Amino acid sequence: MKLKTCVKLCAIVFLACTCNTLKAQNPFDISLAQANEIILKAKENAEASNVLVNIAVVDAGANLKAFMRMDDSYLGSIDVAIKKAKTARYFNTDTGELGELTQPGGFIYNIEHSNGGLMTFPGGIPIKNKDGIIIGAIGVSGGTIEQDRAIATAGANAILN
Amino acid sequence: MKLKTCVKLCAIVFLACTCNTLKAQNPFDISLAQANEIILKAKENAEASNVLVNIAVVDAGANLKAFMRMDDSYLGSIDVAIKKAKTARYFNTDTGELGELTQPGGFIYNIEHSNGGLMTFPGGIPIKNKDGIIIGAIGVSGGTIEQDRAIATAGANAILN
Amino acid sequence: MKLKTCVKLCAIVFLACTCNTLKAQNPFDISLAQANEIILKAKENAEASNVLVNIAVVDAGANLKAFMRMDDSYLGSIDVAIKKAKTARYFNTDTGELGELTQPGGFIYNIEHSNGGLMTFPGGIPIKNKDGIIIGAIGVSGGTIEQDRAIATAGANAILN
Amino acid sequence: MKLKTCVKLCAIVFLACTCNTLKAQNPFDISLAQANEIILKAKENAEASNVLVNIAVVDAGANLKAFMRMDDSYLGSIDVAIKKAKTARYFNTDTGELGELTQPGGFIYNIEHSNGGLMTFPGGIPIKNKDGIIIGAIGVSGGTIEQDRAIATAGANAILN
Repeated sequence: MKLKTCVKLCAIVFLACTCNTLKAQNPFDISLAQANEIILKAKENAEASNVLVNIAVVDAGANLKAFMRMDDSYLGSIDVAIKKAKTARYFNTDTGELGELTQPGGFIYNIEHSNGGLMTFPGGIPIKNKDGIIIGAIGVSGGTIEQDRAIATAGANAILN
Repeated sequence: MKLKTCVKLCAIVFLACTCNTLKAQNPFDISLAQANEIILKAKENAEASNVLVNIAVVDAGANLKAFMRMDDSYLGSIDVAIKKAKTARYFNTDTGELGELTQPGGFIYNIEHSNGGLMTFPGGIPIKNKDGIIIGAIGVSGGTIEQDRAIATAGANAILN
Repeated sequence: MKLKTCVKLCAIVFLACTCNTLKAQNPFDISLAQANEIILKAKENAEASNVLVNIAVVDAGANLKAFMRMDDSYLGSIDVAIKKAKTARYFNTDTGELGELTQPGGFIYNIEHSNGGLMTFPGGIPIKNKDGIIIGAIGVSGGTIEQDRAIATAGANAILN
Repeated sequence: MKLKTCVKLCAIVFLACTCNTLKAQNPFDISLAQANEIILKAKENAEASNVLVNIAVVDAGANLKAFMRMDDSYLGSIDVAIKKAKTARYFNTDTGELGELTQPGGFIYNIEHSNGGLMTFPGGIPIKNKDGIIIGAIGVSGGTIEQDRAIATAGANAILN
């Protein structure tokens, strides 16, 4: 971690702890406010692209933080979206990049059998805060894999501006 | 069902189908807009009571529709909230009432072993629309069982006003 | 087995094997025709009693043979009905009688944890053929436990007349 | 949706609600009468083709509605048929078309690890009502994949005449 980041983190923790009006928020984990912002941005992006998706956000511990299923989107995408988000955080990677290694003959062929089932095609993206720390992940399912990836990326980027 | 209810259902279906700006919304199933309204109301209620909870909403088919975990609420409550919502819809009942029958010596002792795990203490409530049709269910976990039940009820009632 | 039963079985097998127009039907296992007769009788009985139920029939190997869910019956009863039928065949017993032994302090306390989940309250009944051989089991869920048991019994008895 | 469809849906809802002898039937979900008609047609078709199959029907929420296993058909086909039906409804698609995308190198390689196991070869078909609304799905297993697909299709079409 850079010195600048460390100073920032200290300031955040110090302020959060000492200020009466704020609860201490772990700067290493996603907050519900951030998760909601991310999901709403992803949904907005999906609507603009006319795609019906399921959107899941997990926290730094890979545990479900928030979820939303658009009307008439696939029922099967509930689990796919959640598993994409988990997979992205399990290995801190774009799920599509992981998938390049899991093909027959690949380095981690059939790793999908671990962790109660991984999803290794595009649509899962780690969520980073402004300091580059991974605080969770987003998973999107319902469109084409490229649409899912674009929507997930738009969501993840929502808290960087 | 009452005649008034029938006429209403027809009007809903007809308007939804013929109006260009609306997609046909199944009046027998919860919409995402309704699920969000319910979750936000439940969250508001939890904050007002100073309780940290997980809130899950399932649709008429008992499939996850929306979910939200408040910061610092229990990790173990993710699955409890989802299972409470599913249980409430599986048997169209307040999960706490079901629990009265599942105790040792009760009529349906150990029914919790079905459906991949049921939750049979308070916090799961069916969601009805204004016509009394069950369109989904809400599950809340994180507070005392009475707090969870009150928050779930407040959520479920949000779409009745 | 009684001599009379043995002679019957031999005759059945002999006829089944030698007769061109008949397929050999294993007299130790339920046929689909029998399962359908049983389910229809159970459904008829449920309708006459104004109860909405799920009805499952398993074969001699405790594998699902036939299933039917009445409109508006509980979604949670799908798995309960199937598990009742399996439990009844797993232990060749009325599931309600098994439940008397699984209570706290009972001889087989918490046996519900085995076999992927057992249901040990009334509604599961072994199916016997006219010779008293157990060829499968029926499970009913959706009414009170006594209604479920009565409907299951009516179903099981359908092939005895 | 077309105006004609809307008027039809309204008429169905209105008639169902107001007629004393009928319960309100959700026009967006399959009824048991429809499921039975579909399964019997599929069975008839299988018998005519001399194929032994398992046939499963799920509702709009992907929950099991009806099931039937022909005598001497594969035991392993119970779960395959049910999973084919669920998969077809999860993604509103012919399971065989899904399978073209799940091969090594395919867009959604290994998606089968989601939803507790998907079946992505032919034999699962969405069930539509006369207005083109998907109200459930059928899954058939026991013959060749082309036989299974043909039988499932015959079943699904039974309610269109």
